[in-house]
This record gives sequence, structure tokens and C-alpha cells, in this order.
Amino acid sequence: MRNKKLPEINLTNIADSSFLKSLKLKDLYQVSALLRKEIIDKVSLNGGHLSSNLGVIELSVALFYFFDLPKDKVIFDVSHQSYAYKLLSGRNLDHLRKKNGVSGFQDPKESAYDLYGGGHSSTSIGIASGVALSRDLNHDDYQVLAVIGDGSIANGVAFESLNNLATLKNKVIIFLNDNGMSISEPVGGFSKFLMKVSRSGFYRRTKAISRKIFYATRLGVPIYRFFSRIKNRMRHRFSQFNIFDNFGYKYLGPIDGNRYRDLERAIKKAKKSDKSVIIHLNTIKGKGLTQAENDVLGKLHGVNQYYISNDKVYEKHHNTTPSYSEVISNLAYQEMQRNQKAFLINPAMIVGTKQEKIFQDFPTRTLDVGIAEANALLIATGLALTGYHPIVTYYSTFLQRAFDPLIHDVARNNAGLLLLIDRIGFSGNDGPTHHGLYDLAVLLNLENVIICAPSSKEECTAIFSLYQPSKLIFAIRYPKAAAPLKPLLQTVTIGKWLPVQEVITNKIALITYGDIINELERSIKAADLFKVTNLYNALFQKPLDLLLLERIIKHHQTIIIYDIYATMNSFIAYLTKVIIDLGFKGQIIPLGVNDNMISHMDLEEQLKEHHLSPDNVVDVIKTLK
Amino acid sequence: MRNKKLPEINLTNIADSSFLKSLKLKDLYQVSALLRKEIIDKVSLNGGHLSSNLGVIELSVALFYFFDLPKDKVIFDVSHQSYAYKLLSGRNLDHLRKKNGVSGFQDPKESAYDLYGGGHSSTSIGIASGVALSRDLNHDDYQVLAVIGDGSIANGVAFESLNNLATLKNKVIIFLNDNGMSISEPVGGFSKFLMKVSRSGFYRRTKAISRKIFYATRLGVPIYRFFSRIKNRMRHRFSQFNIFDNFGYKYLGPIDGNRYRDLERAIKKAKKSDKSVIIHLNTIKGKGLTQAENDVLGKLHGVNQYYISNDKVYEKHHNTTPSYSEVISNLAYQEMQRNQKAFLINPAMIVGTKQEKIFQDFPTRTLDVGIAEANALLIATGLALTGYHPIVTYYSTFLQRAFDPLIHDVARNNAGLLLLIDRIGFSGNDGPTHHGLYDLAVLLNLENVIICAPSSKEECTAIFSLYQPSKLIFAIRYPKAAAPLKPLLQTVTIGKWLPVQEVITNKIALITYGDIINELERSIKAADLFKVTNLYNALFQKPLDLLLLERIIKHHQTIIIYDIYATMNSFIAYLTKVIIDLGFKGQIIPLGVNDNMISHMDLEEQLKEHHLSPDNVVDVIKTLK
Repeated sequence: MRNKKLPEINLTNIADSSFLKSLKLKDLYQVSALLRKEIIDKVSLNGGHLSSNLGVIELSVALFYFFDLPKDKVIFDVSHQSYAYKLLSGRNLDHLRKKNGVSGFQDPKESAYDLYGGGHSSTSIGIASGVALSRDLNHDDYQVLAVIGDGSIANGVAFESLNNLATLKNKVIIFLNDNGMSISEPVGGFSKFLMKVSRSGFYRRTKAISRKIFYATRLGVPIYRFFSRIKNRMRHRFSQFNIFDNFGYKYLGPIDGNRYRDLERAIKKAKKSDKSVIIHLNTIKGKGLTQAENDVLGKLHGVNQYYISNDKVYEKHHNTTPSYSEVISNLAYQEMQRNQKAFLINPAMIVGTKQEKIFQDFPTRTLDVGIAEANALLIATGLALTGYHPIVTYYSTFLQRAFDPLIHDVARNNAGLLLLIDRIGFSGNDGPTHHGLYDLAVLLNLENVIICAPSSKEECTAIFSLYQPSKLIFAIRYPKAAAPLKPLLQTVTIGKWLPVQEVITNKIALITYGDIINELERSIKAADLFKVTNLYNALFQKPLDLLLLERIIKHHQTIIIYDIYATMNSFIAYLTKVIIDLGFKGQIIPLGVNDNMISHMDLEEQLKEHHLSPDNVVDVIKTLK
Repeated sequence: MRNKKLPEINLTNIADSSFLKSLKLKDLYQVSALLRKEIIDKVSLNGGHLSSNLGVIELSVALFYFFDLPKDKVIFDVSHQSYAYKLLSGRNLDHLRKKNGVSGFQDPKESAYDLYGGGHSSTSIGIASGVALSRDLNHDDYQVLAVIGDGSIANGVAFESLNNLATLKNKVIIFLNDNGMSISEPVGGFSKFLMKVSRSGFYRRTKAISRKIFYATRLGVPIYRFFSRIKNRMRHRFSQFNIFDNFGYKYLGPIDGNRYRDLERAIKKAKKSDKSVIIHLNTIKGKGLTQAENDVLGKLHGVNQYYISNDKVYEKHHNTTPSYSEVISNLAYQEMQRNQKAFLINPAMIVGTKQEKIFQDFPTRTLDVGIAEANALLIATGLALTGYHPIVTYYSTFLQRAFDPLIHDVARNNAGLLLLIDRIGFSGNDGPTHHGLYDLAVLLNLENVIICAPSSKEECTAIFSLYQPSKLIFAIRYPKAAAPLKPLLQTVTIGKWLPVQEVITNKIALITYGDIINELERSIKAADLFKVTNLYNALFQKPLDLLLLERIIKHHQTIIIYDIYATMNSFIAYLTKVIIDLGFKGQIIPLGVNDNMISHMDLEEQLKEHHLSPDNVVDVIKTLK
């Protein structure tokens, strides 16, 4: 019956598993096409992760088609590639990454199909191990599935999980989604190895040919068998197929991960296995959108709202003012020119941090370590201890992966370096996995550290001119924002703060730092509150400007400390303690980020939710005057 | 000439490389014996790492004998196995780990032979990569050598380094010191794999036998050659020898790492290689001391001062009062009995945290993940999200490796767990790599966290009775110390502090927490200062006891906050901020740990160096009254 007339396939009925399972395997390509179109449309409207989602559409459909979700558990690594999965579990992408819309990641608050939500890479196998342990202890019966990319699996955290799971009896099926791309280029021995495996059909071919030759003669058969035995024993005992076999996994693949027949065959075998399985899928990142398929640099890995014209992808709202990332990257470029001992390391975030040109023009003094946040700082330590001047770039949220090397290796060994920390503060539409709020809590406790956050292009330049290679950690923190042009009216020196507005008779002092100071200044001016309020730019969070602080303490009754770029128990607590130590007897008002991990929405909305917008600050001042 | 009369070999002349190099290979066993005796003697006097040092004596001698140190650079992983290396580079172990004696780790301040000092595992390959990069950029000519154990190499950080170094052209020689022991047992797929390689001579045997058979006949020769070619091509292209080959390393071994002839052969080959090399050494941990060789649990991995009697090793100063580790471990044992959903995870620190009995009696609900600090929390998250109640144990200093999963996975996913944090505060004789001072800075910024630090056995018990599995992180922090018996005079509830001495007319309030409170109480009593000072036990660092705090603020002119278990910008800054928020107008005196990473000496001396001994606190009070 179904053969005669294919039921209409639409976004509503494919979200019903029983309908999806009633389709024939070949019909699933229609489902793919539908999902692909929807994702391209909605990402162009809302921004989001594009290429990675287009590559795993067939896999996502296969999960629903061959497994029993949500009884079987799916843990996506990073989970920015879960858009098709969201559609298939009845969610829509209409307000993707917007307030009250779906998150750009898996999120248990959103759906029973999401057991866990992750936004940092390489956690899926560890989480899946814990779930599988729990299942078996509880004598439950379901499959635990982890979907992880070739970039993520080459990370240390994923390795620890792979290594541990190998000796556990708790079965997990790992889908290794190998698009050979990582975020931009594949890095490291692991990737090289995967590529080799993916490209080589040698073993199967050799085997088939030699079998044919020897089976042609009677004498040949026992000879062939003898050698087969040796070969198999050898293969089994000693020189096993690959790293996964070596660890004790059942390895299946590589298969064409965009082909349902391949997926079916591998999944059926995987279901039968009683030990953990790795299904190695070769997929095409960006599949179905030519521009994304050809995007070797990863510029379409994550995108803002975009449109396509003349076969090129354009951002809808291209900001003409350069971002802090661009400004800092240009300054780092100049530092690379100026200082032949400068060496720049970036863990897989070259495009996001706008460092393409540095890597292009300084190939021998740059290194992309891939998603190896910890090792980036170890290599930097080795370089620093032997006379080089490392510059290492992180997103604040990913620096969390390197807190131990930062404390134990860099700081303790006096391995001086320039630490560029991008994306500080609330993450906006990325949501709670990506907040850049924790780095300062650790940095403030380090010996020999200079920490600053510029609020204009000119301050960026001034800070770079102060940077001198030394045994110190020189950390520059900056948000994802346009860096305004703002003439420098005062000399910038290390540890010196900049009074923005200062009238000796004003009794309220407002201390803050970073880009927000610009909007804050406008808000205070608009509310005509500079007649009661002095505004100070705490350009350096360490060392503090004790001289200026003494003046502030002397002349003010109230000090407001406003920080949107770190948790409350970082700079605000630190500065409060120092102000008290200096003998201040007035009122201190902390306006900072509490511990609530606020979810995805526009940055402005996140500030309002926390009562931390510049207007909120103005309201506080009004209650005081 | 030298053949006739062997020169006397003593600790002085072997520290001279030219003398050492003048010896014949077989004479080096005398050097081994001398070093072995010295290490056993000095560790028995001073305490320190024993077994690991005894296993690498031959390797250490070989480094000096075959290489050109300190021009060639040696990076020991963890570096607690560098005692022979210290002796061979002219240092003595007379005051090992004592103030002004040598450190228990490599230390650049100590010797030009130490370029880098590490105390956390798995960093050596990353550091060595940076050094090798630097060497080649600078067109220098020396070897970079990393010495790493089989436990350390199976960690995620080491994996990242191995993975990155594989694609760098900068040569490092890695000595993989495989004693099959890690700290206690080997864990994970990697260890299983190493064991398999170490035990298997299959390939070489098979090859030799089949060659013999086929070469016996004329016909056999071309058949053998044909299959050899297939086999070799297969081996080369596809099913390479092992994980290290797969990554692109030159792999040598496994060899007998306690045999100089083997070391010589491998090192000569390694020197000639133009790519990075892994020399896989099988060594005997504890070699030369029967008790250490037979110590499968790793009890002699690190020891206090000891003596040997009736072939057993005894600690000289065995404390009869149980330590916090023991008390907490017993309580965790009871929790495991009481709660069938409790599941305990420990990353390679079972002996140190006294959890042997838990692992023995609850084999299905315990897991040693090896040195995989990050994965421990990922597995815990998976368990917690599916109804289990994880208990995870760390040394504070190693928890630094898991700060990202703590923030991103555990806290954000509300994966409730009981977090046991051992070894908080100064590390005493271990020195700066092991201070337990940073965990609180991160913990205080987490949502849904309860943090406490008991100061007696009874408080430990009371706290455990309050622990209820929930979505919260329940963190218990405790130092390496004996837990005194001290009757509980007040009910303990979550967030409630305990007044130790409180007189309404006293104007000085002293707030502190943890074991130090006991000595502090004695010191204040001895100085007869309770007539002016009230003492409060801030048993919970979060949530704070706001009710009591209001009373404290109301009745006191001066509040001293004294914390020796975290950096100054953790609890002290946090509490200061809250006290100010509550409207306190008096004086606040912070007595806490500044950012100086103080070196190895007795704990009491470290406190004095920081002016943080209880006597220092008494002195501060005296200035006030």
C-alpha cells in the first residue's frame, strides 16, 4: 500500500517516530532534504551553527529510525550539531537561540530527548559512560549513544573517557562523525591517523585479490589459509587494526555517514555487540550547501544571520566598526612583526578570534593545537622557559580547560606570556555553556599577573604598547563587541585607572571596566547624573590603582562597583576587600553577576535579567542622590 | 689501564659527568647500587617518594652517560622520580623536602639541570614540545628528553601533547617508563594495550619461524617474499604496530629499562632518528627493595619517615589519631552501605585518601579512573543525571584539572554530588606544586553549592548526617591532619556557624574554619585573649550564616577573618563583601594567603613564612586590645 503512494513528508509528521519508522529507507532522503532546507532557512534567519548541522542530518534521522528514543539516550558532543535532532523530536527552530526559543545546544529543560546539555567539546563519551554505568547497575535496558566529531575526540578529556570506557563493561555506541575538518583544519596525530584509515581500502582489496589468486589452484588454498591464519593472529594479537581496536572497542567503519544503507548496516551490527562500539562515519560538513561544503576555513561553522548572493554567503548585519577581536588580533600581528621571539598559539579558535592573517603570514611562529586547551599552555611554558615570548589566545569559557596549567605550569614557573582572553562576560545567544565569567576568579589569585580589559580601540593599542615580554602573565580580556574609537585623554600605564568623569564635589563613585563603560557613560549623561557621580575606568583589575583608590575613598560617600565580565566573587569581592583595607567607611554597592547560569537570549536581555544593564545602574544612582 | 683497577665509585665522583662517562657500561651497575642505597637511606630519614625513584635509577644514569646534560634538557613528568637525577647532578638528599633542602621535585631554582619543575602528572611531553620548538626556531642543537610513566601518559593532558607533538617536526625523545603500576593499579584501555605490547613477542617469533620453514625449500622463498611484502605493506599502510606508530612516532621497545645494554641500544637509535621517538621501557617499580617491589597497592609510592623491621616497612611517627582522610573515608563507607544509589569515583588517589576498604567492599559501585581528573566528573554527571548519587574524591590540587567539568558539566546540569576535597591548604613538604589553595575560588562562584570544612571528627560525622542526595554540589574540604575528638556542643545544620567562644561584651570577633581552629583556640586561651575576643567557626563557607553574621556585626568593633585553606581572594574577599553589604562599619582585618607560591618546608614553617600561624593571629589581637 505505502509503496503506491508515499505519504506527504513534512516537519510535523517526521517528528512522530512511528511515522518516521513507517518510511522505507530510501524515502529517508526526502526527510534529509526537508530537514536540510529548514536548517538552512532558520539559521539564515537566526544565526547559529550551520555546517556541522548539515553534515549530521542523515545520522540524526538514523538515530530516530533505528533506535527507540527517548528511551535510548543520545548525548551529542558540544551539541551545536543537534538542530536536525531538535526538529525530529518535535521542536522548532523559529526562535533558535533567542529568548524563549530553543537553545543552540541540547538542553534537558527543553525536551525529554535531551538528558544532558553540553557546549564544551569532548564531554559526550564521559557522560555516556556514566549513563551506561547507571543503566547496568539499575538493570535497565536501553542503548546509550554518543555522537562526537573528529576534532572533539582528539581532545584530552575525550581521550580520558575513551580510555576509561574501554575497560568498563558498560556498552556505549560512539558515533565518530569524521568530516576531516574539526572546526577549521584537522590537527594532530590522531587526525592524521583517522584520515589514513578513511582513505585506505588497501586491506580489503589486498585480501580479496590474494584470496582470488590462491583459490585458483588446489595447492593455493592451504597456503592461503596458512597465511590468513598468521595474518589474522598477527592482526589480532599484535598489530591490531587501529587505536580503537587496540583499546578494546569494536570498531566499525569507516562508512559513508550521509548514506542510510551504510548507517543501517553499521547500526545493526553495533546493536548486536556486547561491548562498546565505535562507528566511524565519514560525513561531509556543510552537506547540501555548496558554500558550506567548500568552506575549508570554517567560516560557516557558526554564523550570524546571513543571506546568499552570487553564490557567496554574506552576513546581514555586518558591523563596520572592527570588533575587539579584530583590533587585538591586529595588534598581536604587529607584535609578531616587531618581536622575532613572539610565538602565537591558538587552540582551534583562529577564525573566531580573527587570527587568520597571523597564521598565514607567520607560519613558523604560530601553532594551532586543535581543541587542546591544556597543551596550549604547556607548549607555551616550554617556549617561555627557553627564551620565547608566547602569545596564547582563548575564549574565556574554554580557558576553564586550562586553569590547572595556568596555575601549576605557567604561573608557578614564571613562564611569562601574553594571554588574550576573548569573549568575556555573558555569552548572549550561545547560552550558559559559554559564559566568560570564571577566568578572573582564577587569574586574580595568581602571582605575577597583570590583568586588564580595554574599552576602546585606543586603549587596546595603549595596552599593547605597555606589554613587554617578561616573567609575568599579561592578560588582556575583551568581549565579543565592536571596539569604539575614543581618543585617549590620559596616559595609560600599568596599574593606572582612568577617571572618566571626576568632579571633586561629587559624592558617588562608580568603578567599572571594559566595553560596557561606553554605554554606561551615555546612560549617566542622558540621565544627567554626572553632577553627582564620578565614573572611573578600572582599566587594570590587577594590579589596582591604589593611589587613585585612596583619592576615591577620601572624597566619596558611596562607591558602586559594577562588573559584568566576571562572577561577583572575583573583582567585586577583591576590590571591596581592598577598599575596606584602605579604611573606607562609606557605603559600597556591588553590582555584579550572581551565580545563576542564565540561559540563551540577546546579551542586552541577559543584562536586564540580572538587573545589570546600564539603565539599572542609573536607577541605583537615582536612589542615592 | 682502567680495566685493571676500577676507580672507586662514590657519590661525589659520579656527579661528575666526565668521570661517569669514563666508566664501562657494566660498571654502571655499581653506580646503580650506590644510588639505590642512598635513596633508600635518605627517604627513610626524610620521607618522600620511594618506589618510583628506585625504578628509574638505571634510566637516570643512562641520561647522564649517553647524553650531554645540562645542554640536553630533561623534563621529568611529575618529577617525584628525579632523586637519582638530583644525586647525579651534584645535589644531595640530606634535607630532602625540608626547608633549605632539595625539593621532592625538579626545580629550576635548585639546579641548572632542571629547566622546568612540575608536580602534577602528564605535563612533560607538552613542556618538552615547547622546548623543542624553541630549540629549532633558534637553530640550537640539543636533545629534549621527556621521562613519563605509564599512569601519567594515559591522562588527557598527556594525550593532547602526544597528539600535537606527532605532527610537529620538532624532535623529542620520550622515555615511557612502564612499570605496569601507575600509582596503584593500571587503569584503562591504554594500560591494557601497553601490557599487551610488553608481554607479546609473538610477531618476532612468528616471523622467524615462517622464514625458516619457507627458506627450507626453493619454492618457499618467493612465496615467503610475496607474503612478506603483503604483510609489510599491510603493516605499514594500514595496521601499524601500535598507537605510537599510528600517530607517527618512531617506536622503540619494549626494552628492559633496568638493563644498561638495552638502554644503550635504544638511545643510540633514538639519537639517530630525525623524528620524535618513544622508547618504551619496562621497569620494576621499587627495584632493589623487596618490600617496594611487592607493593601492589602503591603504599610505598610516597612514604613518611620509615624503618624496616621483620621485612616490613613501618612509619616512624605513626599518628594514632585517625586523619581527616580516614574519618571521611569511614563516613563515605557508611554512606555506601546506607544508600544503594551511592557510587564512589576516585581518580588514582585511593591510598592517599584512605579509600581502599570502600573499593574492596563495594566493587560494583566504585570506580578508579586513573589519572583522569576531568573524566571522573563527567562519569559522575552521567550517573547523577540518571538517578545515582556520586561521591567523588580529589586532592584539592588535582581538582584544578577538573574545574571545567565542575562548572560546565556538574554545576550547570544540576548533577548533584558529594565532593570530597582532601589536602586543602599548604602542602608542607610537597611544596608549591601541591598547595590546595585554589579550589574555593572556583567553588564559591558556583550555583547550588554547599561548601564546608569540619574541624573535628564529630563535625565530620555531623556534616555527613546532613548530606542528602540532591541536585546540589555538597563539597567537604579537609586538610592532611589528624582529626581531633571534640564533643559537639551545638546542633549542626546546613549554613549554620558555631560560636566557639562568645561573650557579649567582647569587641573583637575572629572568624575562621577548619582544623586550624583547634590550635588557634589553644593559642588564644594561652594568651588569655578570650576576654576580648570571640571566636567563630565558619563551618560552612557557603551558604553563610547570615543570622549569626548580623549578630557578629552588631556587637563587634573589629572582625578578623582568618583563612589558611584558600587564597585571599576566595573566602576572605567573599565574606568581606557580605559583611560590608550587611552594613558593618567597624574594622575588618583579613589574615589570609597571598599569591606567593611558597616552597617546600614543614607546614608550620609555611604558616610562619606567611605570618599565618595561630601565634601570628594572637599577635594581631594583642595590637588591638
